[in-house]
Amino acid sequence: MMNRALDRNRAPIFEALQAHASRKTASFHVPGHKSGAGVDPASASFFTSILSIDLTEITGLDDLHHPEGIIGEAQRLAADCFGAEESYFLVGGSTVGNLTMITTLCEPGDLLLVQRNVHKSVINGLMLAGASAVFLPTSYDAVSGTAIGVSIEDVAKGLGLYPEAKGLLVTNPNYYGMGVDLRRIAELLHRNGKPLLVDEAHGAHYGFHPSLPPSALACGADVVVQSTHKMLTAMTMGAMLHVQGQLVNRNLLKNRLAMLQSSSPSYPIMASLDLARRNMHMNGFEIIEHGLLAVQIVIAQLDRQDCFGYMGQDADAEGHCWKDPFKISIYDKTGTLTGPQLQEALEEQGCFVEMSDLKYVLLLLTPASTREDAFRVIEALGHISAFHGLERIKESATPLAPARMPSEISVPIAFQLSYSMDLDAWGTIELTIQEAVGKRSAEMVTPYPPGIPLLYPGERVTQAAADYLQMLVGMGIRVHATALGISGKLIVYNE
Amino acid sequence: MMNRALDRNRAPIFEALQAHASRKTASFHVPGHKSGAGVDPASASFFTSILSIDLTEITGLDDLHHPEGIIGEAQRLAADCFGAEESYFLVGGSTVGNLTMITTLCEPGDLLLVQRNVHKSVINGLMLAGASAVFLPTSYDAVSGTAIGVSIEDVAKGLGLYPEAKGLLVTNPNYYGMGVDLRRIAELLHRNGKPLLVDEAHGAHYGFHPSLPPSALACGADVVVQSTHKMLTAMTMGAMLHVQGQLVNRNLLKNRLAMLQSSSPSYPIMASLDLARRNMHMNGFEIIEHGLLAVQIVIAQLDRQDCFGYMGQDADAEGHCWKDPFKISIYDKTGTLTGPQLQEALEEQGCFVEMSDLKYVLLLLTPASTREDAFRVIEALGHISAFHGLERIKESATPLAPARMPSEISVPIAFQLSYSMDLDAWGTIELTIQEAVGKRSAEMVTPYPPGIPLLYPGERVTQAAADYLQMLVGMGIRVHATALGISGKLIVYNE
Repeated sequence: MMNRALDRNRAPIFEALQAHASRKTASFHVPGHKSGAGVDPASASFFTSILSIDLTEITGLDDLHHPEGIIGEAQRLAADCFGAEESYFLVGGSTVGNLTMITTLCEPGDLLLVQRNVHKSVINGLMLAGASAVFLPTSYDAVSGTAIGVSIEDVAKGLGLYPEAKGLLVTNPNYYGMGVDLRRIAELLHRNGKPLLVDEAHGAHYGFHPSLPPSALACGADVVVQSTHKMLTAMTMGAMLHVQGQLVNRNLLKNRLAMLQSSSPSYPIMASLDLARRNMHMNGFEIIEHGLLAVQIVIAQLDRQDCFGYMGQDADAEGHCWKDPFKISIYDKTGTLTGPQLQEALEEQGCFVEMSDLKYVLLLLTPASTREDAFRVIEALGHISAFHGLERIKESATPLAPARMPSEISVPIAFQLSYSMDLDAWGTIELTIQEAVGKRSAEMVTPYPPGIPLLYPGERVTQAAADYLQMLVGMGIRVHATALGISGKLIVYNE
Repeated sequence: MMNRALDRNRAPIFEALQAHASRKTASFHVPGHKSGAGVDPASASFFTSILSIDLTEITGLDDLHHPEGIIGEAQRLAADCFGAEESYFLVGGSTVGNLTMITTLCEPGDLLLVQRNVHKSVINGLMLAGASAVFLPTSYDAVSGTAIGVSIEDVAKGLGLYPEAKGLLVTNPNYYGMGVDLRRIAELLHRNGKPLLVDEAHGAHYGFHPSLPPSALACGADVVVQSTHKMLTAMTMGAMLHVQGQLVNRNLLKNRLAMLQSSSPSYPIMASLDLARRNMHMNGFEIIEHGLLAVQIVIAQLDRQDCFGYMGQDADAEGHCWKDPFKISIYDKTGTLTGPQLQEALEEQGCFVEMSDLKYVLLLLTPASTREDAFRVIEALGHISAFHGLERIKESATPLAPARMPSEISVPIAFQLSYSMDLDAWGTIELTIQEAVGKRSAEMVTPYPPGIPLLYPGERVTQAAADYLQMLVGMGIRVHATALGISGKLIVYNE
């Protein structure tokens, strides 16, 4: 099986499911819907066809946690396509990939260098591992104030201060599609015998076209997590974890995956990963080219009007970074509409967007985006401009700059799954955001999107953090925290 | 929103997705397939319809980790339907539910009473929590030797020996549909101020019909995990976690769920949970009645012939337990065919089954099973009987009795995510099963199904365990372990 020549035009998982479905077998196994026989009639037009291949680990359909057949072959094809030595299919999104790579590399008490603006699943991984993080500061985009990534100087400084660090974890690109050159960072780490772990959730399409940055794997990263559902065509929750090199224990990694992923993984999601891979393997360049056409239309039309700008429009003002052309962050140049207001106005026109921050609305295009999509959003912006009279620049046009995160290398911050020592000793109370200043947060508080934690459990609420949080809430930015959305309060330790 | 009257005929998540899909919006958000525009043409007939509702947390579609809209409403309807105070939708199967309930109840060093024959995800939960387990022995079915569940006497003894225990976790029913009466066990725990956690993965249909056992919630359990995809009609990985009472910290539980589940949960899976709930909420009795008809046909036909028996056929010989009628474990009474051989023969006839052990083949019927399914398996058995000449009882007809697990209450066994102290000190080696006797396993070794670990990491390989494992492998039973399926070897510590 291992020697079988790889045929990139095959989609082994999908083909096996299709073959099984065509055999008209009788099911005396899970799932309970019995290939769709039990489907709710009202939902049949959406569900019946997919349920015919919503199967399980019956004979011939292999086992994600012990792949010897179609899943093993599909994973080897994925490794070939994305440039890894080994690839693992994830059915729990990049979340489970991030949890896995951290709990594989770090034991309780171990120390990891971590980019400050990481996704909250990275923090959760640190908590599960019981590891400590030394947070490295990030560069910032000069115009938008957006956090981008770590510098090689700070990585070198971090390694010098903490030679016991197990490695470095970065989230690259960021939510806006901005990233840093990982090649020199990977080299530096490897010279120190340490691995580079990359949460590349938004970069599954990287490296398939000269207009795109190279992939993290091509830059030398040791473990890379990609959300195949975000920028390619897998079903939501379909993701991959890729490995190369010998700096990470692969047996332990497989054990962690088997621990953290469902023992009943979704075959439709796995098949969609298989199909997404085949598309890119066969026609990656053409597929990207197709999507870039929509991108080019949007950009060209934006350049022809004066109301709406986009991040990166004035290239000279940008800090050095790599930029994903599929992420277009637009804003109202007249200063009339905030990000959330522009988002709402676009949605009234039927254009649903990825997210908004205080100023920007992020349009996330992908290789599947079309010319029609491009013209539709431009038309919507025209309507919005006319309706709100955006031709006049308002007095209050100064853009709001996002609050910056600390610019120094942090001291080691210990994360643990347990925080009941605190809970037991102090208990928790709910306080308004302003009352909470000076207290320690009892939970992670994460504006979402982009999912970068503003407060970690145990971190003190500073006045700056409270003011920023208050502003986000006031502007309708969603914030993940247990009570904030219900009572407007934060849960803090009652010291 | 909280006061809104519940209408069980609504399916809020599905309805919102359907409404969004019908609006013909343009997508500038994930997922990358853009409502199916990027689907692989070869797979379109399976995927296109579901991809139109494979959406994400855009405006109006709520947020699983912060539910305030359709997901919150769907979860309240589920709580009403299944008899919980609060219900949470799981998109990572019962696996994530088991991990969550253990990491919510147990801190590192805490002790939990645990039924010995639990699913491996329970062991993984103990490892994540860094908790210790005191394993309680189980009763056994007198005829098949199958492990069933804990006795109230052993629970009382466990509580007496370990008053510091945080609670009790049981898997009930077992894979074969056998279980114990949880009511007195729940009462005993509650008198001691401790919660009962139930992995009820195979019992989501319990309590909806007088022919079925009552649900764990009805028996008083505090936290219950159900695989809605196994016996009801959700898509695979769709499950629920239910809570009642005040013995478990619900805020912490929500935090754990947000940590362990994808931050991009699958909407089709959530919608399928919503629809499965509506079906049972509206027509639970009739739906079960429909499935029982298929069960009754299979049983009546089995009773009319002499080649094949089924577990529980001779009711007097059974130990006291509750039995799910939808699980029919058949075997070759003549002793000619082992479980795996009978499974293979059935699959040649197009009847795919849930699993086989050494002797039995488990036919898993559900409310969606039909009369046609029932007649088809009976016909297949007739063919098999004729082909193998099963009318004559062979000499070797003595059934193989599964090896029994320890019958005493265990000492506390500490689990931890870290086992690199051992790895660092000793390293690991791969040995054949027989060579491994006396060594400590470096990983969990789990015959699968039914997914009950035979060896835990760090547990010594006894001669009995090695012989049993050798027999399982020889008979074609799949065993989860890193190298066993490839090289036939176990990974053990090189002490």
